[in-house]
Amino acid sequence: MSDIREIVADYIMGLPPYPKGREWRGEEDLIRLSANENPLGPSPKALDAIAKTLNSLHRYPDGTGRELKEKLARRLGLSPDNIILGNGSNEVIEFAVRTFLKEGEEVLVPEPTFAYYRIAAQAHGGRCLAIPLRDFKIDLVEITKRVTSQTKLIFLSNPNNPTGTIFTRSEFEGFLAPLPSQVVVLVDEAYGEYVTAADYPVCQDYLHEGRWVITTKTFSKFYGLAGLRIGYGIARKDLIEQMEKVRQPFSVNLLALVGAEAALEDEKHGEKTSRMNEGGKRYLYRELARLGLSFVSSEANFILVYFGSHTPQVIEMLLQEGIVVRSMEGYGLGGYSRITIGLPEENKRFIQALERWQEGS
Amino acid sequence: MSDIREIVADYIMGLPPYPKGREWRGEEDLIRLSANENPLGPSPKALDAIAKTLNSLHRYPDGTGRELKEKLARRLGLSPDNIILGNGSNEVIEFAVRTFLKEGEEVLVPEPTFAYYRIAAQAHGGRCLAIPLRDFKIDLVEITKRVTSQTKLIFLSNPNNPTGTIFTRSEFEGFLAPLPSQVVVLVDEAYGEYVTAADYPVCQDYLHEGRWVITTKTFSKFYGLAGLRIGYGIARKDLIEQMEKVRQPFSVNLLALVGAEAALEDEKHGEKTSRMNEGGKRYLYRELARLGLSFVSSEANFILVYFGSHTPQVIEMLLQEGIVVRSMEGYGLGGYSRITIGLPEENKRFIQALERWQEGS
Repeated sequence: MSDIREIVADYIMGLPPYPKGREWRGEEDLIRLSANENPLGPSPKALDAIAKTLNSLHRYPDGTGRELKEKLARRLGLSPDNIILGNGSNEVIEFAVRTFLKEGEEVLVPEPTFAYYRIAAQAHGGRCLAIPLRDFKIDLVEITKRVTSQTKLIFLSNPNNPTGTIFTRSEFEGFLAPLPSQVVVLVDEAYGEYVTAADYPVCQDYLHEGRWVITTKTFSKFYGLAGLRIGYGIARKDLIEQMEKVRQPFSVNLLALVGAEAALEDEKHGEKTSRMNEGGKRYLYRELARLGLSFVSSEANFILVYFGSHTPQVIEMLLQEGIVVRSMEGYGLGGYSRITIGLPEENKRFIQALERWQEGS
Repeated sequence: MSDIREIVADYIMGLPPYPKGREWRGEEDLIRLSANENPLGPSPKALDAIAKTLNSLHRYPDGTGRELKEKLARRLGLSPDNIILGNGSNEVIEFAVRTFLKEGEEVLVPEPTFAYYRIAAQAHGGRCLAIPLRDFKIDLVEITKRVTSQTKLIFLSNPNNPTGTIFTRSEFEGFLAPLPSQVVVLVDEAYGEYVTAADYPVCQDYLHEGRWVITTKTFSKFYGLAGLRIGYGIARKDLIEQMEKVRQPFSVNLLALVGAEAALEDEKHGEKTSRMNEGGKRYLYRELARLGLSFVSSEANFILVYFGSHTPQVIEMLLQEGIVVRSMEGYGLGGYSRITIGLPEENKRFIQALERWQEGS
């Protein structure tokens, strides 16, 4: 268990308390490119809706989340019965594990990927098999080969965190077709709203394929509501019903329900977010190339960058400049760091810091 | 399972969508005496702190909850290592069940009590034995007699929901002394802040008795933050460490952390809440007695009242008046209803409605 506890600790401690060796000037001082949050901040419409609800905070939330589920269902062209809400999409992942995985059953997890899949599965007695990425992409062909009668659950992150790569519609369909019917496939689309590739698979197309596909989505990234803790799962009605049995009645808080509803309809904030992310990505691709640094092309709001053996010095140098990024050494990606695409000014300060460091070293 | 699902549905649906047979005039129209919320509303200091944090909602919360745990520890005279935070105290109850209960192990649950204990235990394969109350009080003597080598977990609600009664310090000590060492005792003090009895046991006195005592507390009742979802558990450090392993890193949202910290220090709101509750209780005792209605004396913010065979008519009549209370028929307390102590004006309207109904029938 100790490795898992370390991953959790690392995960929780994304942000060090303060840069070593210089005075801490407070939160505003930091450029946080470490947690893939939306640097534009929360949707202003969500904040308005939340502010109007503060006086009702002594009341319990609607335990069914009916209004938000109806709004999501309309947007997705599904029924509210195809949706389960969670205290962040992490909780939906936990519902799936607790509902469908029994002690000792086998779980296939790409590696590297979001650390929580393994944490959740192991906490419930799952035996995790790691399937290495190929060219920084989830290797669906290899995963198919590793499926046995023991396999119960497969985690797929699309785009994959921390590489930012996706699998395409045809790749996913080729993967689903031969899959034994007992297997639950959980596709985590935490970064799905950022994807621009035309052949990105749309989750709700696969609810009725005779396979057990659960898609998880979140308001923590694109919608800028990480602090509120709200995500959701999409699946066939019978799977949702089973997962609802392990859900606490009030797991999603009142402000999360209200904020998520408003954020969904804040098209202006959504467009601004997409534009900023695409612009930032183009800028970083160009500047990283200019600096001779290699990186992995991303469909998400982060970029995996290679600093090689200089990684510890680069991370420390960036901290001194008030810029926080995530080293991926602990994820089996030695030499790589994950950089959240920030505001234009933040991206610029990141590049300038790298440039000064290259000149100085 | 179907009975459990009904209890959950009942629990979630505490508030019917609108009174039958008359026009719905919106939320403000209702006097909600059904969910034991604080009718004064949230602590103003908590609301201030929350409003100041809204612009940071795109950031993840501190997954360790360090500052809140330190503040709680100082107030309780404990170490932060004795505290675990949860997404409502319900989640802490779930942590305890998931950590300490194995499939098929025995759980002792007073009856009637808060429905969630049984729901949580059964969801994890616990075999629940119901121990009836005696004189509306949890029967610690009978519970002691029912403990066997199979017993793993005992739930105690102090004050007990829905009866409002407490067990005393000496009763609790007499219960703890002969208890086999494998048994975990979970004392739920969701209403503890309302208790005025001098012999009420203080949980943290029993952390190091050689028994496994876990106390759960909440910000949903006295502190008026039910919508935010935050509660905590108090136990020996080794028990807390075990429970932390099943906790998701970000189960408590950012506004809950910030709001709870501020609410803890809002002594004015706390005093006002206590004063209002005590005054309302005296008023309701006197008026219920005047109307010839029997009730159970309460140490909490609700009163169990007997309407006997008239219960369905009384509930419906109150709904017509815009007053929501909870019938306890589904809890094995036929003829009883649980009434949250409201604002003075709300209590008065409740009594006046009963009086008019008595005169009319």
